[in-house]
Amino acid sequence: MSEEILKVGVVTVSDRASRGEYEDKSGPAIEAWLKRALVTPFEVESRLVADEFDEIGAAITELVDVASAHLVLTTGGTGPARRDVTPEATLAVCDREMPGFGERMRQISLQYVPTAILSRQVGALRGQSLVVNLPGSPRSIAEILDELFASIPYCIELMEGPVVDTDPDVVVAFRPKKK
Amino acid sequence: MSEEILKVGVVTVSDRASRGEYEDKSGPAIEAWLKRALVTPFEVESRLVADEFDEIGAAITELVDVASAHLVLTTGGTGPARRDVTPEATLAVCDREMPGFGERMRQISLQYVPTAILSRQVGALRGQSLVVNLPGSPRSIAEILDELFASIPYCIELMEGPVVDTDPDVVVAFRPKKK
Amino acid sequence: MSEEILKVGVVTVSDRASRGEYEDKSGPAIEAWLKRALVTPFEVESRLVADEFDEIGAAITELVDVASAHLVLTTGGTGPARRDVTPEATLAVCDREMPGFGERMRQISLQYVPTAILSRQVGALRGQSLVVNLPGSPRSIAEILDELFASIPYCIELMEGPVVDTDPDVVVAFRPKKK
Repeated sequence: MSEEILKVGVVTVSDRASRGEYEDKSGPAIEAWLKRALVTPFEVESRLVADEFDEIGAAITELVDVASAHLVLTTGGTGPARRDVTPEATLAVCDREMPGFGERMRQISLQYVPTAILSRQVGALRGQSLVVNLPGSPRSIAEILDELFASIPYCIELMEGPVVDTDPDVVVAFRPKKK
Repeated sequence: MSEEILKVGVVTVSDRASRGEYEDKSGPAIEAWLKRALVTPFEVESRLVADEFDEIGAAITELVDVASAHLVLTTGGTGPARRDVTPEATLAVCDREMPGFGERMRQISLQYVPTAILSRQVGALRGQSLVVNLPGSPRSIAEILDELFASIPYCIELMEGPVVDTDPDVVVAFRPKKK
Repeated sequence: MSEEILKVGVVTVSDRASRGEYEDKSGPAIEAWLKRALVTPFEVESRLVADEFDEIGAAITELVDVASAHLVLTTGGTGPARRDVTPEATLAVCDREMPGFGERMRQISLQYVPTAILSRQVGALRGQSLVVNLPGSPRSIAEILDELFASIPYCIELMEGPVVDTDPDVVVAFRPKKK
């Protein structure tokens, strides 16, 4: 475990927002959630890209390799529409998949809508960073992070990142007892 | 959304049925389910192939690229037996996976049998078509479609296909409210 | 179905245990579970390797191809830490994935801890053998096998292996009725 401060990359993937036709509400929703949930210090680096395989991969790569993000959260581009390629772009720049993240996010969203199975979200690792695809809608982002984030502080510790603590009124960061 | 009529490809994968040793009951079970469930018009194109990687892939490709199917449902070849290669053949001719379909189908079948985890079914996209592997048994096909189909009309709309509506006594087609 | 005796390969993946710094408790925990659960005869072949992609793959390959194991159970190396590569090494030497095994194992462990989603365990097939990644901790191994093993005897039969029966006080081996 290191003494460094948590660095979070946020990547909004949206053709319309990247052309300025539309204000990005999803990236700010992630940042607002982190402000509400985390009691340990953190910094956010945000990027806004079009639904382009190469742009998405480049943003993740830069946030991990140059900005040294411990955690990268993307939003948008995970459905079945023709332009939705965020999961493919994510896996292409990662070394190892975390299949439990995609499964769990769909399980959480299935509590709200049966169409949750159309979300192709993945979690994966690039070096010492965890990359997670979140959905596009601010409401779904909060529904998922409220449950999913329980596992993320321990994941970051296992990857030798900083200690992250949360406000238990938002989400309890779980750490298994050593067996 | 287009005005065109829904086109569904059905691929029965079975060595014995393709040799004529055995009557195909699974393909007709899918078609019977669609007749019961859909209230908007549709056409079915059926194919019967052996448990051969190349034949399965060729049937899916032809149904999507030539017959312009919006939806392709396969049946058979998804277990762990030596000849079962339908999921591999499906992924090989598709561009993007829909991991929620396989997960959800196994969850549905787990309500009935613990051996549901042996089903290797996948969902995936080839161009503007959704391809879903269903199990081989007519009873399991209906158990799955009764729940899974709730998400399929909205998926087809996201892929710019026709509007599909269902008889709510069989399954309610779910469309999320815009957020 | 053959008359042969069930052969189980057990692979402990652990840097520390493989250097002798630490006694392997996970491999013996798997063997103890099998002794408790199986009422038909079986033989175990054990291997102990470091968290090295090539060593893990070589152990699985040798157990399947040379020792003719019907079932290979690995333990360890499935988390997000830098050295954890058991799932990647497993998939690299297998032909076909069994996605239901990873999904089900995470579901089972989620009943106990939210961090179950950090487990990257997979199930897969190499030739006529089933390979399953189990977690590292003896307690988690038993929690998972008590439920997961319900499907394994039928899986082995579908792959033309021996008949395996279990003590129903530990786990009931499920075989679907022919439809």
